[in-house]
Amino acid sequence: MPAPAPPPPTPFGPGLSKPRPTELIGTSTGSVRTGEPRDFSANHRWLSINTATVRAQWPLDRIIDECAARGIRAISPWRDQVAAIGLERVAARLRNTSIELSGYCRGGMFPGVDAAARRAALQDNRRAVDEAKTLNAACLVLVVGSLPGALAGTPAHKDIAAARSDVRDGIAATLEYAREVGMPLAIEPLHPMYAADRSCVNTLAQANDLCDELCGTNKGEGLGVAVDVYHVWWDPQLKAQIERAANASPSRLLAFHLCDWLVPTTDLLLDRGMMGDGVIDLPLIRSWMEACDYPGMHEVEIFSRDNWWKRDGDEVLLTCKLRHETAC
Amino acid sequence: MPAPAPPPPTPFGPGLSKPRPTELIGTSTGSVRTGEPRDFSANHRWLSINTATVRAQWPLDRIIDECAARGIRAISPWRDQVAAIGLERVAARLRNTSIELSGYCRGGMFPGVDAAARRAALQDNRRAVDEAKTLNAACLVLVVGSLPGALAGTPAHKDIAAARSDVRDGIAATLEYAREVGMPLAIEPLHPMYAADRSCVNTLAQANDLCDELCGTNKGEGLGVAVDVYHVWWDPQLKAQIERAANASPSRLLAFHLCDWLVPTTDLLLDRGMMGDGVIDLPLIRSWMEACDYPGMHEVEIFSRDNWWKRDGDEVLLTCKLRHETAC
Repeated sequence: MPAPAPPPPTPFGPGLSKPRPTELIGTSTGSVRTGEPRDFSANHRWLSINTATVRAQWPLDRIIDECAARGIRAISPWRDQVAAIGLERVAARLRNTSIELSGYCRGGMFPGVDAAARRAALQDNRRAVDEAKTLNAACLVLVVGSLPGALAGTPAHKDIAAARSDVRDGIAATLEYAREVGMPLAIEPLHPMYAADRSCVNTLAQANDLCDELCGTNKGEGLGVAVDVYHVWWDPQLKAQIERAANASPSRLLAFHLCDWLVPTTDLLLDRGMMGDGVIDLPLIRSWMEACDYPGMHEVEIFSRDNWWKRDGDEVLLTCKLRHETAC
Repeated sequence: MPAPAPPPPTPFGPGLSKPRPTELIGTSTGSVRTGEPRDFSANHRWLSINTATVRAQWPLDRIIDECAARGIRAISPWRDQVAAIGLERVAARLRNTSIELSGYCRGGMFPGVDAAARRAALQDNRRAVDEAKTLNAACLVLVVGSLPGALAGTPAHKDIAAARSDVRDGIAATLEYAREVGMPLAIEPLHPMYAADRSCVNTLAQANDLCDELCGTNKGEGLGVAVDVYHVWWDPQLKAQIERAANASPSRLLAFHLCDWLVPTTDLLLDRGMMGDGVIDLPLIRSWMEACDYPGMHEVEIFSRDNWWKRDGDEVLLTCKLRHETAC
């Protein structure tokens, strides 16, 4: 859990005090749920910006400043963006602006062609955990990987079951270290169109199964899931699996990511839509999260090579704020 | 069930007699399975060509002739290709060449913005059933549709649950007519990346659930599933759901479609790979179908705007035959 942060330099709106840091992440303990949806229409207290959303416009230090200037109180940065600025400099910038991390992108990519490759992946995940801890992230998001080499266009084999086995072992090993350090891991199921190269965990049911296998349903401290609407909106089991995640003890709902699915979608990776521009029923899915007392941030994560990445960063952040109030 | 066809004009290979037409489609009755995989390495007796695979090269009448000339004994044509030549002319050409239909593409697209649109869809599906019957198809493949208007880029709503309800009702109504006529319907689950515009049935589990809901597990005559590896290869439940489909009475396994998933995939619709060029473990999935005594054809269906659709049709068919022998 992140340590308490200093008071924010910017107000969140009339009558709004800064939430306790524990509100940032899932802390449901199985007690009676209120199920009361939070009202997002009047302010952006619960808005987080995944920094990939404006990565084409600004480096990370600038993104932090731009968010702070707009009263956006959380981000989720990527490791390469952090590395480009320097970990300690980023940590200082976050402290100075009171910006918190709804998550850190990303650990994972566990499968490897051989034991050496898998060991290297585990080492890299330890570094990701350490970085997430330094930055006081609410969780480290895991994009678990799939067929080794596939992301580079040279898959070493076609055995997705083996990849899934590597993933289970990799999470288990990383979880051990992450628990020592105190950094929650959030398994993010990715859309099945990424099953070959980015993640062999493609449904929330699978992510829940992994949590069950590694922790059981009531010893799950430190392991949970990231629910990204882009990846799971199509799943007829979505509501049931959100509830299953929430009913574990503690709740597994560690992160909630927003964007939209465009019709047509012109690229498998870089054509995500702004909330409201696509076909995902965002208020419905959010209502399921809220009914399960998900207490955390709404993280906007939009990869959009031909649209939002080409616009002025100010327009992008303004639109994120507006759509979060009106379309989610 | 198709009526017996005249003897084939081309041999299928030494020692091979033409299979009975009933072998073309699923006829498992729950009796003891042999589970013996068929040997495809020496001939193409079980190869069918979905005619979209060479649609850029040839009109349908030419495709039929080219298949016949190569001893390919089955195809699966699309309605627009049939319409371009004329239904009766196509039927005559099939009789003359003894080419059979492993399936007919396609019925479905049931959801509509209003009752009139849904009625029009049902009328169109009746016509599709009639055409399939005229052509003596083993089954009518259903691509069920999803959000009305989404395929044209103008979705009328975001309620995928409503679309799923429309689909259930549409299949139920069409099934009634299809049973009168004697034309099996094969629900084809489509990859989740088509959930918005082409099909809100995105897993084999969903297709099986629909069959259960509409027929129960032992009154399923005339309703089943089409298993297309492109759509379902990623699904961790695939083996279990193939077995579930086979264990219904009669078996629901009505069709099996082949191609491959490329890494990277550059287009959501038109970048399918030739068998062996991608990451799908085709022999493994085929072994699951064979273990369930799937008795039918292997239908090669490749949409490939920038590769196979640009090659000479002779090369495409030759490669289909070769890869079916060596990569499946």
